[in-house]
Amino acid sequence: MTTQAKPSPRDRLLDAAARLAYLDGVGIGVEALCRTAGVSKRSMYQLFESKDELLAASLERLAPSFEARLLPGADDARSPRERILHVFEQVEAESASPAYRGCPYLAVQIELKDADHPASRVAHRIKQDLTAFFRTEAVRGGARDPELLARQLILVFDGVSARAGIRADDLAGLIAPTVAALLDAAGVA
Amino acid sequence: MTTQAKPSPRDRLLDAAARLAYLDGVGIGVEALCRTAGVSKRSMYQLFESKDELLAASLERLAPSFEARLLPGADDARSPRERILHVFEQVEAESASPAYRGCPYLAVQIELKDADHPASRVAHRIKQDLTAFFRTEAVRGGARDPELLARQLILVFDGVSARAGIRADDLAGLIAPTVAALLDAAGVA
Repeated sequence: MTTQAKPSPRDRLLDAAARLAYLDGVGIGVEALCRTAGVSKRSMYQLFESKDELLAASLERLAPSFEARLLPGADDARSPRERILHVFEQVEAESASPAYRGCPYLAVQIELKDADHPASRVAHRIKQDLTAFFRTEAVRGGARDPELLARQLILVFDGVSARAGIRADDLAGLIAPTVAALLDAAGVA
Repeated sequence: MTTQAKPSPRDRLLDAAARLAYLDGVGIGVEALCRTAGVSKRSMYQLFESKDELLAASLERLAPSFEARLLPGADDARSPRERILHVFEQVEAESASPAYRGCPYLAVQIELKDADHPASRVAHRIKQDLTAFFRTEAVRGGARDPELLARQLILVFDGVSARAGIRADDLAGLIAPTVAALLDAAGVA
């Protein structure tokens, strides 16, 4: 058995910010953040310049697990079409959790309504990385217009995440035929 | 020339709630709402039980103009395919405005994170009406699975509104081929 080190105040703040922003929105107060993290406000402001910077850093910290949950392995032997569909199967599986509130990066950008906010910039970049994955697979799969297909796939990703997150659609039987229609139209077999 | 009556306190509150929630989010305070509307807090609470009820009523009040802007006329002679595409052409045109922040009903539901909030319930119902329009046209257009096509179209509607609203995509050249691929796959000529 290994002894687990208690997370540092910095990590506790990042965890609290990520969790509270996802469940309650970016309007969460500094008091609530510090209380949840068990860190004083004084310490928080020693670690982060502002709540905005804390929020941006918390989104940055989520990126590796976001990508690990969604993307297929780099050495995956499946076809580009199957690798693209894999992402959407993961979204469908995750959306079944009662705690699912859609894509955290889309929600933050919609809530902040300010593309220049530090957290919006982080969120935008991480979603651009996902779009780049789609584009790479679209090229590998011989899509007629890989850029268009990548834009269509991230649009479907945001649409399904948002609608499942607000409980407007349970996604059953929706994603596979939608993505398949776009892949077929793009010529990705 | 007709003399225009000054809007009532009730209408001024509804306008302020709709405008501020759209531009700044549902977290807007009662103080800011009342100041913008030029109405005292006391009067606000005589007219509305709570800020939540005011927000819900403001979304309800937006519905006729939301539908008038997006939907084709009932006596429109165009084909179901063209009538469906009309909705998306309107979204693309609206999204070019610097004030565009995406679909107000989607944003409110994402921000509230509570499907039982009175404003979420109103938003959900108004979007169901738009989904019903898509379903009706899908049936008229002979779609193989009208329910599936309607779910796909509202998914694309929410995806494009969200991505244009956060300035992640300017929609140029995106919507028409996406909707066309889904209509083609559904057999709607």
